[in-house]
Amino acid sequence: MEEKQTEISQLGEFGLIDRLTAGLEYNSPNTVKGVGDDAAVLSQKTGLDTLVTTDLLLENVHFDLTYVPLKHLGYKSAVVNFSDVYAMGGTPRQITVSLGISRRFTVEHIEALYSGIRLACQKYGVDIVGGDTCASHQGLVISITCIGEVPQGESIRRDGARDTDLICVTGDLGAAYMGLQLLEREKTASAGQSDFEPDFSGKEYLVERQLKPEARRDIIEELHKAGIRPTAMMDISDGLSSELIHICRQSDTGCRIYEERIPIDYQTAVMAEELNMNLVTAALNGGEDYELLFTVPLTDHDKVVAIKGVRVIGYITKAGDGCAMVTRDGNEIPLKAQGWNPLA
Amino acid sequence: MEEKQTEISQLGEFGLIDRLTAGLEYNSPNTVKGVGDDAAVLSQKTGLDTLVTTDLLLENVHFDLTYVPLKHLGYKSAVVNFSDVYAMGGTPRQITVSLGISRRFTVEHIEALYSGIRLACQKYGVDIVGGDTCASHQGLVISITCIGEVPQGESIRRDGARDTDLICVTGDLGAAYMGLQLLEREKTASAGQSDFEPDFSGKEYLVERQLKPEARRDIIEELHKAGIRPTAMMDISDGLSSELIHICRQSDTGCRIYEERIPIDYQTAVMAEELNMNLVTAALNGGEDYELLFTVPLTDHDKVVAIKGVRVIGYITKAGDGCAMVTRDGNEIPLKAQGWNPLA
Repeated sequence: MEEKQTEISQLGEFGLIDRLTAGLEYNSPNTVKGVGDDAAVLSQKTGLDTLVTTDLLLENVHFDLTYVPLKHLGYKSAVVNFSDVYAMGGTPRQITVSLGISRRFTVEHIEALYSGIRLACQKYGVDIVGGDTCASHQGLVISITCIGEVPQGESIRRDGARDTDLICVTGDLGAAYMGLQLLEREKTASAGQSDFEPDFSGKEYLVERQLKPEARRDIIEELHKAGIRPTAMMDISDGLSSELIHICRQSDTGCRIYEERIPIDYQTAVMAEELNMNLVTAALNGGEDYELLFTVPLTDHDKVVAIKGVRVIGYITKAGDGCAMVTRDGNEIPLKAQGWNPLA
Repeated sequence: MEEKQTEISQLGEFGLIDRLTAGLEYNSPNTVKGVGDDAAVLSQKTGLDTLVTTDLLLENVHFDLTYVPLKHLGYKSAVVNFSDVYAMGGTPRQITVSLGISRRFTVEHIEALYSGIRLACQKYGVDIVGGDTCASHQGLVISITCIGEVPQGESIRRDGARDTDLICVTGDLGAAYMGLQLLEREKTASAGQSDFEPDFSGKEYLVERQLKPEARRDIIEELHKAGIRPTAMMDISDGLSSELIHICRQSDTGCRIYEERIPIDYQTAVMAEELNMNLVTAALNGGEDYELLFTVPLTDHDKVVAIKGVRVIGYITKAGDGCAMVTRDGNEIPLKAQGWNPLA
């Protein structure tokens, strides 16, 4: 089935890097020198601050190559970093890409991964300016660092939420998590069957949300156009509940969100039903949504609800009120951050 | 023997990060916001360019915890990145630190690793501004990205060497490689013996060069004081031979270096003798020296030889002359880059 495969040892490290970075273009306004030296060189412009964010992705912890195509994996690895820069109100400009490659990968595999990274960069106007490539005795390792820019003093932190601010989220939540459940289910069903055809019909949205998320550049642009400056913002990567607690803790506030206001896609609901899972739990704790969570002053209400794709789900309170969700029947349930398991 | 050990699961991801980053100070002039948000925020100043470099280190590929203490490993992981920034003529300012941690590590282990990173940062005036911490199913993964600054347009690339330029190296070469051989030998000798005492007497320098290298900030300062601006520069991480070929290829030149001019420490020579290894091969291809390799115009000869720790080892030629070493008996041997083995 597969095309011609080339052993990485045939090219060597530098040959591989040459092949991966062939024809790379530098389009960001401040990239002076990209790949090929001890360090990349970026120009600094007055009136801007620099943003730096980084993500480490490990095989079988963050991704399973049984059902994640390498090109999608590359795309997602880049986009999750862009998402962090947008979540500061900034614009991503450059990334460095470090890869640990185990022996079972060929040049063509790594090219597929890299083509996904390049596609994401093209779409979001970001330059690949450096990285590191080495052997891995274990699985695939992907470490991406993203450099961005934001007008000086204008970066939007997590600590600026104030009592009575409105809590807003973009898009819908829980779909990426349900996509993961679906992929895992089909993986289990396919075990040992060589001619297995996974069944994703009617659930394409869930699979796409898991495999090929997008960063909400559009929302950052809309907020800017509407003259709205969020008081606090972050992206939702670990689940709404955990992220809201971060904002409240760092802002020294509490919050109330309404169960009925949490945006959930129809396919997410159907899948939860099928799997006998609690839908709201999935939306609160599912993770990998890469939507934006932000707070705005109450006075911005009319402006913010006019933006397509933004929903107000609650409000910020004084710290003493704690963080809670108001259920459909009017009860209050304390929000909990998901624990971290070193075995993930 | 070991102190009290705490399971990472007792603290959770955020608890671990809190503990590792407790009391972190931000001393770099342009760190606005460090750890704790979607991205770090750095101010931009006119008249400066930003440098970005990154390194990925994997257990059992780049380091062997049988004989590498975690604190040393942390120190080295940071320093090798600083070295890349100095090799551009710049000053390191910030790093991000991403760690993939497998189950066998305790909180105290990771604290030891981090304390080495913090020590290096303190010594070189660098701030830790972010990172990512996750579980690893395999060994320890360390990914560090360093941000630095250099006066605008003054970064020293690999492509500026010109015919007749002098080729200079700092310090001595091959010692880190010999240190590695020594550590490997003692590891083999100790196999299965619980009370084994490794014998490093008279070879402390080799072990230190392997386990705790320093970046040549001092040389960058001396060059600056002497008013010397290298035409090309890089750090020697993969061996002199390979790095010289990089400079010559990117500068479209050739080179001649003299075997007798290559700086080698006495302990390196003794160890090569003991192991029956070719000393010059070790110095040319050994790697991990983290010394600087640079070229200066012929007219800077007197100024550059006056700097302690710098040796002129040859000169740049036209591309057609190729890259070669002149041996003690006057023969010319072509320089070769070390191959890359995906199994490392």
